[in-house]
Amino acid sequence: MKIDVLTLFPDMFEGVMGSSIMKKAQDKEALQFQAIDFRNYADNKHQKVDDYPYGGGAGMVLMPQPIFSAVEAIEKVSQKSPRIILMCPQGKRYDQKKAEELAKEDHLIFICGHYEGYDERIREHLVTDEISIGDFILTGGEIGAMAVIDSVVRLLPDVLGNEDSAVEDSFSTGLLEHPHYTRPAQFRGYEVPEVLRSGHHQKIVDWRRKESLKRTKQRRPDLLENYPLTDEEKQWLDEID
Amino acid sequence: MKIDVLTLFPDMFEGVMGSSIMKKAQDKEALQFQAIDFRNYADNKHQKVDDYPYGGGAGMVLMPQPIFSAVEAIEKVSQKSPRIILMCPQGKRYDQKKAEELAKEDHLIFICGHYEGYDERIREHLVTDEISIGDFILTGGEIGAMAVIDSVVRLLPDVLGNEDSAVEDSFSTGLLEHPHYTRPAQFRGYEVPEVLRSGHHQKIVDWRRKESLKRTKQRRPDLLENYPLTDEEKQWLDEID
Repeated sequence: MKIDVLTLFPDMFEGVMGSSIMKKAQDKEALQFQAIDFRNYADNKHQKVDDYPYGGGAGMVLMPQPIFSAVEAIEKVSQKSPRIILMCPQGKRYDQKKAEELAKEDHLIFICGHYEGYDERIREHLVTDEISIGDFILTGGEIGAMAVIDSVVRLLPDVLGNEDSAVEDSFSTGLLEHPHYTRPAQFRGYEVPEVLRSGHHQKIVDWRRKESLKRTKQRRPDLLENYPLTDEEKQWLDEID
Repeated sequence: MKIDVLTLFPDMFEGVMGSSIMKKAQDKEALQFQAIDFRNYADNKHQKVDDYPYGGGAGMVLMPQPIFSAVEAIEKVSQKSPRIILMCPQGKRYDQKKAEELAKEDHLIFICGHYEGYDERIREHLVTDEISIGDFILTGGEIGAMAVIDSVVRLLPDVLGNEDSAVEDSFSTGLLEHPHYTRPAQFRGYEVPEVLRSGHHQKIVDWRRKESLKRTKQRRPDLLENYPLTDEEKQWLDEID
């Protein structure tokens, strides 16, 4: 997969893209990543990328030209037609389903503004997707783009080792994960539940399913609405009440 | 504000914390930031931080000892009692209200696991808050911590310049932002709406309020449920229908 990020702060990506799984993905050539300063594509003398808003008001607005030109320069050398993703608070809330959808693409381009608005024509005539990672305000789109990139790249074939990928992920079962415990069995007087040390496989499986249901009910009851409960699970839920 | 992050990948934070507003906040001494490798606090010979889960299953689980010891070492030199935040998919969904709450604190400690579970005793007996940035799976808690840190630090006094902070933020009004336009008035045949160039202040204000309502209704109708509509806005919404 090829990923290009348009940003005024390309250095922001160094730490995240140069560490751990994102680094491995590039070393294995599963990912070709580039962070591009779109200021380099501004066709005005002072490489200006923003200007005052029409109609007045505070704040600056990113001009369409530098971003259109940067995207077109990338598209010119791309074999595939890329998804062009705008990171913005007005976008569709990102979730695991969207990650799985994007992981099937060959080429993603991310546009990251930085505490400025986007000229509406970018939104209307250039981008294919608008994505928000949540209802909170960030100084720019860069951290959101990192979150999307990380969640997509880890789904690519051969990126995660067997051990990493084997972790039972929250959301992949539709419920929150059950509690985990490891050594030592006693830590500062806090004990690992007896059942997990019992060696009784079926009891362990049942304990985990119950705890998973319980935690989901307590913390994220909304997830239960779309979860197909078995009769046994319905009974457990009644017991939790 | 003091922020310490416990992670196995401290280098991940360099780009984000060394650029733009996060760098400025540190230069101005509004923020004292440190990323700490909690492996340094493991009291076993091989600096092991994880072990197999009790009860079997795939994946590794972060042991309580290194993380408890790292937090306690930080607390020992802290004047204030810190909030201890676990980044995890089971946590409470992060939002702007939580950002505002955390911005009032003097000291935050973030615990970031990396594609591994946390021993439940960390959750139960050490942390004060569990935070998730959304329903998608990341390879670790680091990018989520960056999102929380960015959104909190930009709220600290003197961090954002007047111009930056003056941007009308989405979520702060309770509605999505209206469209923005800047130069040129014509770009590749796409025009800036006439009203914004009219100089008629009241018409511009009304257009923006209507567009903001329209966009919110189309994209995030859930936000309207808690928004106190004026009679005029109710009428506009009917017209949009």
